[in-house]
Amino acid sequence: MTDWQHYLDEHQEQFIQEMLDFLRITSISGLSEHMPDIRRAAEWVAARAQTAGMDNVRIMETGAHPLVYADWLHAPGKPTVAIYGHYDVQPVDPLDLWESPPFEPEIRDGRVYARGANDDKGNMLIPILAVEALLKTRGELPLNVKFFFEGQEEIGSPNLADFIAGHKEELACDLVVSADGGQWSEDQPALMIGLRGLAAVQIDVTGPDHDVHSGMYGGAIQNPIHALAQILASFHGPDGTIRVQGFYDDVAMLLPEDRERIAAIPYDEEAFKASIGVDELFGEPGYTTRERTWARPTLEINGVWGGFQGEGSKTVIPSTAHAKISCRLVANQDPESIIEHITRHVEAHTPPGARVMVTPYESVAGAYLMPADHPGNQAARDVHLQLYGKEPYYGRSGGSIPFCTLFLEALGVYTVNFAFALRDELQHSPNEFFRLSSFRRGQTGYCLLLDRLAEMRG
Amino acid sequence: MTDWQHYLDEHQEQFIQEMLDFLRITSISGLSEHMPDIRRAAEWVAARAQTAGMDNVRIMETGAHPLVYADWLHAPGKPTVAIYGHYDVQPVDPLDLWESPPFEPEIRDGRVYARGANDDKGNMLIPILAVEALLKTRGELPLNVKFFFEGQEEIGSPNLADFIAGHKEELACDLVVSADGGQWSEDQPALMIGLRGLAAVQIDVTGPDHDVHSGMYGGAIQNPIHALAQILASFHGPDGTIRVQGFYDDVAMLLPEDRERIAAIPYDEEAFKASIGVDELFGEPGYTTRERTWARPTLEINGVWGGFQGEGSKTVIPSTAHAKISCRLVANQDPESIIEHITRHVEAHTPPGARVMVTPYESVAGAYLMPADHPGNQAARDVHLQLYGKEPYYGRSGGSIPFCTLFLEALGVYTVNFAFALRDELQHSPNEFFRLSSFRRGQTGYCLLLDRLAEMRG
Repeated sequence: MTDWQHYLDEHQEQFIQEMLDFLRITSISGLSEHMPDIRRAAEWVAARAQTAGMDNVRIMETGAHPLVYADWLHAPGKPTVAIYGHYDVQPVDPLDLWESPPFEPEIRDGRVYARGANDDKGNMLIPILAVEALLKTRGELPLNVKFFFEGQEEIGSPNLADFIAGHKEELACDLVVSADGGQWSEDQPALMIGLRGLAAVQIDVTGPDHDVHSGMYGGAIQNPIHALAQILASFHGPDGTIRVQGFYDDVAMLLPEDRERIAAIPYDEEAFKASIGVDELFGEPGYTTRERTWARPTLEINGVWGGFQGEGSKTVIPSTAHAKISCRLVANQDPESIIEHITRHVEAHTPPGARVMVTPYESVAGAYLMPADHPGNQAARDVHLQLYGKEPYYGRSGGSIPFCTLFLEALGVYTVNFAFALRDELQHSPNEFFRLSSFRRGQTGYCLLLDRLAEMRG
Repeated sequence: MTDWQHYLDEHQEQFIQEMLDFLRITSISGLSEHMPDIRRAAEWVAARAQTAGMDNVRIMETGAHPLVYADWLHAPGKPTVAIYGHYDVQPVDPLDLWESPPFEPEIRDGRVYARGANDDKGNMLIPILAVEALLKTRGELPLNVKFFFEGQEEIGSPNLADFIAGHKEELACDLVVSADGGQWSEDQPALMIGLRGLAAVQIDVTGPDHDVHSGMYGGAIQNPIHALAQILASFHGPDGTIRVQGFYDDVAMLLPEDRERIAAIPYDEEAFKASIGVDELFGEPGYTTRERTWARPTLEINGVWGGFQGEGSKTVIPSTAHAKISCRLVANQDPESIIEHITRHVEAHTPPGARVMVTPYESVAGAYLMPADHPGNQAARDVHLQLYGKEPYYGRSGGSIPFCTLFLEALGVYTVNFAFALRDELQHSPNEFFRLSSFRRGQTGYCLLLDRLAEMRG
């Protein structure tokens, strides 16, 4: 057993307790009342990086939620890798569906249950611990490392592009390794070569300037919920195709080799359906389910509200109605253009008697595609062979990590996904969890990966 | 000045304070947590009727919210009138729009601001005080009176039909006078000869069995909000016509004389629009605004909700989405049939991949139409001439008072509307108010009306 393996084993109980401490911080980036908690989480991460032995640990301002930066740059002539993760988490509602409170982590059957356990606090702690194990046992790292942990991934990293543009020298590197993501299963590794992008808007419809009695006014005025329903229904055709003019114009079509690589990965439709309790799937004609979620764009209504939502009946015509919408984008779609197309579509589909406002969220992300045979992917593939005894799948994700696209565009480097979440761990949902076995395996994986990347030639 | 006028003047300050006490009771019938407050309000009404000098004061159980009954039956050979009102109120949300708390009544500029001030607590207190003035000054009433104050009008009086059917002898009378309703304006009286009926349902749409990540599942499954939007949008055509099959089948068409009577009442469209802050009206083609709200049926979505409603963006596909719907019905439409038509429509318009449930609310009401020259209307008209110096309009209301139809069907008697709310008093909305001048005028009106009805020959 190597020294660093021994170090990891000896400290595992302490590392788990530290993860639980980290998970107790309510760092929900999407809710402004948690601003102080975001900063508390940043301070926690900075302190932990310091303890691990990193230099130049800094909490850097972005204009919104801060970034935690640290580096270790004492390997001249060796590559430099930036390791990415995020310490912010999703909101927790519906709260009543949690079996244990989301910010009071519980270990049950070798799993840590808490908001952020999987996405991304448990995951992002792994490289910090791996670096510590190498530094404490060898006194040095095999290559240059920069840590780069952000606090606004779950709101789409609105300030990240400007920040990167303003810190290009500081962030310069040969490769990014992302600790936000996952493996295929407990015994099957995967490399992620594609991510979808993101664009989001809120739609606000206004009718009368106050809620009015449906007996007195019903029939005479436009009901803002009726107007909103018509707008929302106009976004899709009956077969699920998106009907926003221009939406598909720039979409990179799937090539035969893309479809083959996707089809090579086992897919169990019954298990997919059972995992979310649906009887039938539904989506764009002409594509497999995996193609629909990995390589085709979507327009989803994430929330809708207006009028009376309480118990019983209230005969009211409300003053306003609202919806939140987000699109998952694929290669070559420009988020700003998509928002423009949606805005024009809403204007064209607003019925008479209603006023409508479309407000884009700042969180946009381009889609991401990386060559399967990139040297960084080759290094990760070698480590996976050692960790799992298996070749990785070359998959994609339907999710969005703005960071990958931003780093590629601003610094010209790709991002290797090297993270240990699994797909059944209820990411973004009540009862999110993370396996302690993944937490431990990831630490070994990162030690191996850093050694292997030290030999990388770009 | 008559003795009872003098009595009313002398006690006015006390009566106002009593109204404020009554308004402090949070008797929201639509929210089950307020059940004890409903009973508290019933007890308040019973005690007040007792103080006024009524006999046989009783709180009667209906299976849900109780009724308050009282009578004075010492005028043999004279007609018997039942006086109706309700002591329950609407919910108060959105709470943040109230200038003063809804259950902490405030008097500003001669108006009482509170939930229920206008609808119907202020109004229903009026006949109790008028009866007291007559009894305390004359020692008797000019005719037989029954009080009948219910506690579930705002949820559509679900238990009222059964209750009336089970108490026909007790409730027998020659005429009902309703203290729930209003006048045309501060200087123009009106008689109400028509009301719309009511039918209501909730629609619940289910997709996945938990909220899921829109990146992982977006594109592969039906989003329950998309399904709901399609269902809701299918209810109306672009011109506002209701597209539910069978919905208009039984509607009593407007006759020329109906349209003339409606057109004879002044209507200021600019003022109507300004009162609710809309730039344009919208409704069924071929009808005037007043015809649309008084004599044509509607289908309104009163509330919609599903998914994330908080600040910012959350990229989720929710498990469920919901809507509350109510219809205003006109003469000859059967509420049960309408609910059946809606249910069938929803089934026919449910897109693939979603499960939908339609749950009718118990609160249904048939529409109501009364002859304009009924002796009860003639008596009320005489009093209005005296109170206002003007002939009343013969109008209708777009609202629903299940009581009128139920009494007509069960006991064969019509209901004369004799109440003093005005249309600008934000009924069912934040900042509901009632004018103290209406409160005082109504008391005189009821004393005059009871004298006049004593001479009525059916």
